[in-house]
Amino acid sequence: MTRQHIAHRMKGISPFHVMQLLARAKELESAGRSIIHMEVGEPDFSSPEPVITAGKNALDAGLTGYAPAAGIPQLRKAIAESYKRTYKIDIDPKRILITPGSSGALQLILGVCVNPGETVMMADPGYPCNQNFVKMFGGIPQQVQVDRKTNYQLTAELVEKAWTAETRAVMVASPSNPTGTLLPKEELAKIHQLVQEKGGILLVDEIYQRLVYGVQSYTALDIANDLFIINSFSKYFGMTGWRVGWLVAPEEYTECIERLSQNIFISSSTSAQYAALRALDPDCEVIFEKRRLDFQERRDFLYTALKEIGFDIPVLPEGAFYLYADCSKFTNDSYSFCWNLLEAEGVAVTPGKDFGENNPQKHIRFAYTNNLALLAEGVRRIKAFIKY
Amino acid sequence: MTRQHIAHRMKGISPFHVMQLLARAKELESAGRSIIHMEVGEPDFSSPEPVITAGKNALDAGLTGYAPAAGIPQLRKAIAESYKRTYKIDIDPKRILITPGSSGALQLILGVCVNPGETVMMADPGYPCNQNFVKMFGGIPQQVQVDRKTNYQLTAELVEKAWTAETRAVMVASPSNPTGTLLPKEELAKIHQLVQEKGGILLVDEIYQRLVYGVQSYTALDIANDLFIINSFSKYFGMTGWRVGWLVAPEEYTECIERLSQNIFISSSTSAQYAALRALDPDCEVIFEKRRLDFQERRDFLYTALKEIGFDIPVLPEGAFYLYADCSKFTNDSYSFCWNLLEAEGVAVTPGKDFGENNPQKHIRFAYTNNLALLAEGVRRIKAFIKY
Repeated sequence: MTRQHIAHRMKGISPFHVMQLLARAKELESAGRSIIHMEVGEPDFSSPEPVITAGKNALDAGLTGYAPAAGIPQLRKAIAESYKRTYKIDIDPKRILITPGSSGALQLILGVCVNPGETVMMADPGYPCNQNFVKMFGGIPQQVQVDRKTNYQLTAELVEKAWTAETRAVMVASPSNPTGTLLPKEELAKIHQLVQEKGGILLVDEIYQRLVYGVQSYTALDIANDLFIINSFSKYFGMTGWRVGWLVAPEEYTECIERLSQNIFISSSTSAQYAALRALDPDCEVIFEKRRLDFQERRDFLYTALKEIGFDIPVLPEGAFYLYADCSKFTNDSYSFCWNLLEAEGVAVTPGKDFGENNPQKHIRFAYTNNLALLAEGVRRIKAFIKY
Repeated sequence: MTRQHIAHRMKGISPFHVMQLLARAKELESAGRSIIHMEVGEPDFSSPEPVITAGKNALDAGLTGYAPAAGIPQLRKAIAESYKRTYKIDIDPKRILITPGSSGALQLILGVCVNPGETVMMADPGYPCNQNFVKMFGGIPQQVQVDRKTNYQLTAELVEKAWTAETRAVMVASPSNPTGTLLPKEELAKIHQLVQEKGGILLVDEIYQRLVYGVQSYTALDIANDLFIINSFSKYFGMTGWRVGWLVAPEEYTECIERLSQNIFISSSTSAQYAALRALDPDCEVIFEKRRLDFQERRDFLYTALKEIGFDIPVLPEGAFYLYADCSKFTNDSYSFCWNLLEAEGVAVTPGKDFGENNPQKHIRFAYTNNLALLAEGVRRIKAFIKY
């Protein structure tokens, strides 16, 4: 058996380049080097105590069997209630399906909606897996270059200009990974209207929804019901390793999505769903809001510090935990820059290459997922590095 | 947005018919009816105490972040050691990748190996998701009808006869779901040789590997290294709801599989992997072996009892926890029979329809996942039902 048996689709599916860098960083750490991590999209907070206790209680109660494919009813209901509490909107729990992380949500929606040969429009730079999911189903990612002029987000105008006969769907993310920028609700409403007129479908990634600073979060469900929402307990709720996400779909799609989910996942982790249920309680929100303010402080520090050194970050990003900086003052090869920075100073950051084809060599993503002291040390080292 | 946006692939992806029956069974239970469950492929045992404790300890230790895409190194190593201990074979841990259940393993292997338009050969009756995974990637399931003559398993002769220019892969399962029958190691070796000669790939589902009765279990890795193994902590290890499985791949495929896994899953549940690690310890094996003997006793009871009533089960199945019975003495419409049995007597079983196109109307799958007392009550009720 030779590699000739590898399917053609794998040619188009890129690895996370940062993973090699992360592996090298860990190698250096094992050898005793101090490494400052600003590369990983994972908070340094572990899951809060009440969430952990709820997971443990579920295990103690023997809740170790399969859950329903669409998720435990209590969690679907609690998510609906949380939409009501936070955004004053009514969502039928039947439209909410629990998934193994938001990755599972993305796969189900694209699997149910996209035919081979159809295109899915998305912003470049963007989350790298989006295009790989589309390719996995034989679809064609249609990457629309965005820049500081539109705050690194799609606009109705850009969508209209890029639309072709093959365009099936448009994906947006607010806040965005890697740029941390928001899509204004009014602009999203315009995009939604346009996509409806064109007869396409709209996917809204709200994974970082509640990680916003100085502004109110919103949900696209407040604009319309005929769109798809992708969300997750990973980021705001600090539950990355549990693998629980959710989607909200228009009612006429839920049967298909549940059918596909039965077949490809059977179910999401049962005890993790009970832990996620606990995360939605108001006393946990107090913990998450405290953490959100910590992230805000980190963002403020890092944004200012990086700009002072000479990185170009056009506007203060209002969400997620990333800064996407133009590094062309220092290099036109951000990939080598990242590797050299790691080897010389022990600071790990993510090269633009991981986020698309839109001038990646000029960009670096900094994650502010570590505490202020570590961020300050990181900045000190970066400063030393660029002085060479 | 209308249902016109549902992708064509969804037409070919069937639901689990038994799920509707299960929903009705639960409805009846809520209304106070006693229901005997012989439909679900999930042991009545919850995860053993040491496994639960290990999961809880991982949570207490704050292991709530992402794991590596290929799995935590300790678990990959422990699985390799378990192959060594149980089957005396050396497998490089690098060839072992942890997946979100064996469903994840199936998806990764088929995603990496099967191009649209290529066919994947499998036995009918068989596990229903296999063909749906193939269809999801644009492949064509090639179902080969098997019956009592070959113990409901593929043979080298059947594979040779069914082979076409489009055949890319052959899938076998030993023990098989729904029939519980084994593929003799010698016959599997012949199938492997044939598939190699034809230039195809071989997938061996060993999910029920160690749930065998009165015979020695084996692994296809003892025959050759150039094949793919799918396995799981769900069945023998009693960990269905944790969603941890694994695959073993030829070395030249591991990079692609890990790359696809990074993109579509990010990682499997971290705490669940630590729990699974504990399940491989020798003191846990004592618990699992005790449970295995319980299953054997249940099989012996149910096999004899169903035959006495008049169900036709050609040979005593030596594995898994299923009996696949010919019910044509009572009906030529097993689907209605199952529904009527549920409504009249409160016994839930799975109609043949869930397992393929090979005379499903004449077959029913009985799961012996409940204790002897419940099985005996189930048999009493079935007897009463067929006397009408």
